[in-house]
Amino acid sequence: MGAIGHVTPQTRHFDAPLPLRSGAQLAGYSLVYETYGTLNAARSNAVLVCHALNASHHVAGTYAGQDKSEGWWDNLVGPGKPLDTDRFFVIGINNLGSCFGSTGPMQVNPDPAKGGRPWGADFPVVTVEDWVDAQARLLDVLGIDCLAAVLGGSLGGMQALSWTLRYSARVGECIAVATAPNLSAQNIAFNEVARRAIITDPDFHGGHFYAHGVVPQRGLRVARMIGHITYLSDDSMEEKFGRSLRNASGLGRPGELAYTTQDIEFQIESYLRYQGDKFSTYFDANTYLLITRALDYFDPAAAHGGDLSAAFAAARGRRFTVVSFTTDWRFSPARSREIVKALVDNRIDVSYAEIAAPHGHDAFLLEDPRYHGLLRATFDRIARQVGA
Amino acid sequence: MGAIGHVTPQTRHFDAPLPLRSGAQLAGYSLVYETYGTLNAARSNAVLVCHALNASHHVAGTYAGQDKSEGWWDNLVGPGKPLDTDRFFVIGINNLGSCFGSTGPMQVNPDPAKGGRPWGADFPVVTVEDWVDAQARLLDVLGIDCLAAVLGGSLGGMQALSWTLRYSARVGECIAVATAPNLSAQNIAFNEVARRAIITDPDFHGGHFYAHGVVPQRGLRVARMIGHITYLSDDSMEEKFGRSLRNASGLGRPGELAYTTQDIEFQIESYLRYQGDKFSTYFDANTYLLITRALDYFDPAAAHGGDLSAAFAAARGRRFTVVSFTTDWRFSPARSREIVKALVDNRIDVSYAEIAAPHGHDAFLLEDPRYHGLLRATFDRIARQVGA
Repeated sequence: MGAIGHVTPQTRHFDAPLPLRSGAQLAGYSLVYETYGTLNAARSNAVLVCHALNASHHVAGTYAGQDKSEGWWDNLVGPGKPLDTDRFFVIGINNLGSCFGSTGPMQVNPDPAKGGRPWGADFPVVTVEDWVDAQARLLDVLGIDCLAAVLGGSLGGMQALSWTLRYSARVGECIAVATAPNLSAQNIAFNEVARRAIITDPDFHGGHFYAHGVVPQRGLRVARMIGHITYLSDDSMEEKFGRSLRNASGLGRPGELAYTTQDIEFQIESYLRYQGDKFSTYFDANTYLLITRALDYFDPAAAHGGDLSAAFAAARGRRFTVVSFTTDWRFSPARSREIVKALVDNRIDVSYAEIAAPHGHDAFLLEDPRYHGLLRATFDRIARQVGA
Repeated sequence: MGAIGHVTPQTRHFDAPLPLRSGAQLAGYSLVYETYGTLNAARSNAVLVCHALNASHHVAGTYAGQDKSEGWWDNLVGPGKPLDTDRFFVIGINNLGSCFGSTGPMQVNPDPAKGGRPWGADFPVVTVEDWVDAQARLLDVLGIDCLAAVLGGSLGGMQALSWTLRYSARVGECIAVATAPNLSAQNIAFNEVARRAIITDPDFHGGHFYAHGVVPQRGLRVARMIGHITYLSDDSMEEKFGRSLRNASGLGRPGELAYTTQDIEFQIESYLRYQGDKFSTYFDANTYLLITRALDYFDPAAAHGGDLSAAFAAARGRRFTVVSFTTDWRFSPARSREIVKALVDNRIDVSYAEIAAPHGHDAFLLEDPRYHGLLRATFDRIARQVGA
């Protein structure tokens, strides 16, 4: 297996307005994307990789001069890797509303009445379906009529599912990992607490904090800490941290409690604070709100009276691979089984794998041999099918 | 079954310093408590009820002129109820560090150097063991050598367990409901996020907000929302709220999405905000930090190299009833089984009930017929044993 080497993001501007699910529209917009591998002559070997909450178009490879800038799914995508860039042309697209380059709330609002200020809270609410529509337009530009596969985990998996419902004829296979057909009340609840932490941060200024020269870092930290708890399994957190003490406060002797309510006492506290601090330095607060709402809103069954099987009638003729992880309590295997049932109800060809992995929701990003073996076999089969 | 009627809290001041587990001591302090029923001549019918995070000494009954002021466990404690006040003398004590009357951070720091200001963040860190020691002193004053039973749920259950380890000879039976022998990394993680939300609220002022005439309500709201998610089961949240829309923003038509990131869209959001708002108007931020730390620190096995069975050797001769609820993911049945195993290892007489209830951790406060039937039978037996 080789490395993908240096990659360079590209930008494509679209002048045609994008009608959004909310009824609003985006007058014009740009998408940032990366590609890996080569599109074959038949244009049959393209694989779209959709990203989740805090990721981007930078799926694999590194940036020149930044050795530690591996893409977020670099363990999966590259020469000789399960999604083999020697055979496939892989595309990563940054979603609208993001803070990593595509048009989003940090960028200038083109409305002249806004005086050249960033969109901020005025950025329109975008949904999974809107993202998929924007992605389809970029594929038009790239000359790709039909994807060999669309792949995504978590929120990325929702986009992969949505592709089969909106652009069924343009998808060969959908690979949906660690995802769900919609958010549960508990999922929405965690999102809402994170949003409240951000929105009630005095530095949020109703979402127009850019003009104040501040960032709602307190809220972002808390939001990320909450999110992080839901990404890890109870078991893996217990194994990794347990009740180990940090002794970072310098108040207690090693192995002894310091008795403090405001300083760090346990390793798990130190870890969460670190994750929160790091996230708050690079992630945009308005993007966090938009993306958690896109998660909340995704619910393909809603337009069919809650009948998921009716919704997936639109996906007939596609092939599916659905993967879940036993310890994922954010999107549990039961949620994947709902998807599988809806597919089977439509006599759609689906493979389902429930991987025994200890790492919770985060497992979809990790290099588990059974998981990667499954994806390798799946992409080998797809390669044969599309002549890649 | 009758009502307990009007009750009146009492206050007892203690001049003798209380040595704390941290090494600090509380020079003098007051405890607020309530009692229900009558202590019999043999003084054998006393039951101590220990409270959890946001409760108090007000276990049962109402206050004169406040019809809706029922105690937090009024469905369990009263004439003819499972813990029958016609037979038992029931005691509720507000723990040190609370904001409901006993000495705590909202009260004046007696240190002359503090100029008559509230303790705030200078209130010493208190532990489950410290609470139990303070409770024991109050029982001395009430002339109660031996409790017929000590009962508690959640953090209250930890106090009940601690009684059998520190004052074994003074406890007939320990009834520990929906509790755990210590907090898991995930439990600590949720506490830490709540604490960070409070501590990083600009209105917290390092815990000395009283002097500023403000309260860190933003942080308290988020803390309560996080806590509330962990009190409810995924299933009960799904059944109660699901993905129902609130339509409170007035932006969307009934049943239709409003597409908003900052306003309420789903019923579960409305519910959590309401719970958070309510909590932030009456609960003290420093108390929240102290009580979550008492939860974090509870770990009777720690002094025995992590061997819980060795810890419970101190409880030999007592009788235990341990109760858990199938859908409680805060303190799951597996955690109760750890306690049961440690008791059995010591050949201690223990009854264990795993109640199939849908309500998650909150089930311990609800009136489930199997659960209350079990407690009724348990207290009937205890009444016969102690001649109540």
